[in-house]
Amino acid sequence: MKANVNQQWRLASRPVGLIKESDFEWREEALPVPGDGEFLVRIIYLSLDPAIRGWVTDAKSYMPPVALGEVMRGIGVGVVERSNHAKFKVGNLVQGLLGWQAYALSDGMGLVRLPKDGVPDLTAYLGLLSMVGPTAYFGLLDVGKPKTGETLVVSAAAGAVGSIVGQIGKIKGCRVVGIAGSDEKCRWITETLGFDAAINYKTEHVRGQLKAHCPNGIDVYFDNVGGAILDNVLTLINVKARIVVCGLISQYNAEEPVPGPYHFSSILTQRVRVQGFVFGDYLDRIKEAVADLGKWLVQGKIQYRVHLVEGLKAAPQAVNMLFDGSNKGKLIVKVSDPNVS
Amino acid sequence: MKANVNQQWRLASRPVGLIKESDFEWREEALPVPGDGEFLVRIIYLSLDPAIRGWVTDAKSYMPPVALGEVMRGIGVGVVERSNHAKFKVGNLVQGLLGWQAYALSDGMGLVRLPKDGVPDLTAYLGLLSMVGPTAYFGLLDVGKPKTGETLVVSAAAGAVGSIVGQIGKIKGCRVVGIAGSDEKCRWITETLGFDAAINYKTEHVRGQLKAHCPNGIDVYFDNVGGAILDNVLTLINVKARIVVCGLISQYNAEEPVPGPYHFSSILTQRVRVQGFVFGDYLDRIKEAVADLGKWLVQGKIQYRVHLVEGLKAAPQAVNMLFDGSNKGKLIVKVSDPNVS
Repeated sequence: MKANVNQQWRLASRPVGLIKESDFEWREEALPVPGDGEFLVRIIYLSLDPAIRGWVTDAKSYMPPVALGEVMRGIGVGVVERSNHAKFKVGNLVQGLLGWQAYALSDGMGLVRLPKDGVPDLTAYLGLLSMVGPTAYFGLLDVGKPKTGETLVVSAAAGAVGSIVGQIGKIKGCRVVGIAGSDEKCRWITETLGFDAAINYKTEHVRGQLKAHCPNGIDVYFDNVGGAILDNVLTLINVKARIVVCGLISQYNAEEPVPGPYHFSSILTQRVRVQGFVFGDYLDRIKEAVADLGKWLVQGKIQYRVHLVEGLKAAPQAVNMLFDGSNKGKLIVKVSDPNVS
Repeated sequence: MKANVNQQWRLASRPVGLIKESDFEWREEALPVPGDGEFLVRIIYLSLDPAIRGWVTDAKSYMPPVALGEVMRGIGVGVVERSNHAKFKVGNLVQGLLGWQAYALSDGMGLVRLPKDGVPDLTAYLGLLSMVGPTAYFGLLDVGKPKTGETLVVSAAAGAVGSIVGQIGKIKGCRVVGIAGSDEKCRWITETLGFDAAINYKTEHVRGQLKAHCPNGIDVYFDNVGGAILDNVLTLINVKARIVVCGLISQYNAEEPVPGPYHFSSILTQRVRVQGFVFGDYLDRIKEAVADLGKWLVQGKIQYRVHLVEGLKAAPQAVNMLFDGSNKGKLIVKVSDPNVS
């Protein structure tokens, strides 16, 4: 990085279909100087999440869209390098919506300070403890409400959230079946993470495999993808089952209206509860999740993996890995040196 | 009716599209004679309900399909005319799945005895107190959970269930908007039943009218129809709204797979709870509903209307009134003389 220069990706146009680098503008400008009550954060890691595709779309959602010309929205971890703020001091680690940039000026709004000790690696925040893990935790336990012995199916099961959902399902005594997009991912979630079975949706017959691996039907479906997989699940859903709608990644890049599931009527006949879930609704309860997730991490009951991409410049192109499934683990951009003194 | 002869409609083939009279076989056979622990019921009223379309379809549902050659399933009210049963005596009024026939032989399984007094008219059971009213009651209050001041939208709002849902919504302090299929129905639900607004989906622009009549968005949607109306509602649905999936009448006669709502993603972005509801799950709580509904009926806070069709023979053709909306009120076939001594 250049001294005294900030680098940024700003949204230049609303993407149609897959995100293109040309939808963003690369901007280099003078480093901002913190005023009273402000501080400057050097961003170390930037989280890339499927939700990003929604944030750049001009449609009603749980957050307003990123405006054209605005620094692209993104969650990051960084270190305070200059400060005129009473609570955020030089050397503090912080996390929040720091944006796609090398440095962020902040008054502390929406940022949390992170402890320096007790976490093996700064990526643990983005890969497990800050958003991904609590999303899996509250989505599964508070909305899905799995019971011991029930069958849980997870889509995007080797993804950042899905892989944690399945592991929590195992901790809670469920039979867990994951759906993922490569043999390597399927092996990882069964052999390393302990899922009971995995289905490669790109090479296997999803409904046939679901039927084989869910002999007692499906009680909880944690959905990250929507589309055809949701439809297949609905044909095997049990009475009083719960479907957690956490993501619809299969349709985020659609350029035409996408029909809902053809087996929508199963919701009626099986008296299914289908419920949308957004992590932001649980911010005031995040400590519950972090306490359990931290404990399980230390006990070796939960693992996560990180897919690091080098350099802020790569962010726009890296995002699409989330949609073609080529990332292996939580997708994170390394923006600057993680060593903080 | 002929003496000592039973008349029946038996299912002859699985209907494709709308139900045809030729899907049933008219059978006349000797009256069955009750054995030990059995009794014979003369059926007075037969209820025709949209659910019937599902019962004759060979698809997984909340009840097994009616078998070919079997007497068509239907809920009726009747009077015991002969009995060798300790609890069901001659002259008792009964209700349950008596079937599309003039007489039913029973051992009492699944039938309930009805009080002779305190109800103005036997049709009150089929029109309000037995299934229709409790469906509206539990579907709205237990699944929809409306709060005072919220906006409730009901489809098939002049139908048997929908008209009760809207009236309960008013009792609970909601703004209630009904969607129905004729100007007469719209006038009835607003002028007579007290709905705040009505939309004629056959002549008006549903989304535009919903937007006009729901200035604060939609908090609870009690859905009897599915299809395009559900899609329109999803575009105006509030955060944390509830959708009660009680019926999908718009697609019961479909001959091709029907796509789910195109705005399924609103379930995620607005964190909506969509829940299937079947009255049968609440049989053990029916007294709660009957107590309140009976009270509201006496207080004049709830009204219902009945559309009577004369004679069992008319049943197969009358069913389709439910799908073209030509019935006005709870559709009931008068099978025999309602006067019981």
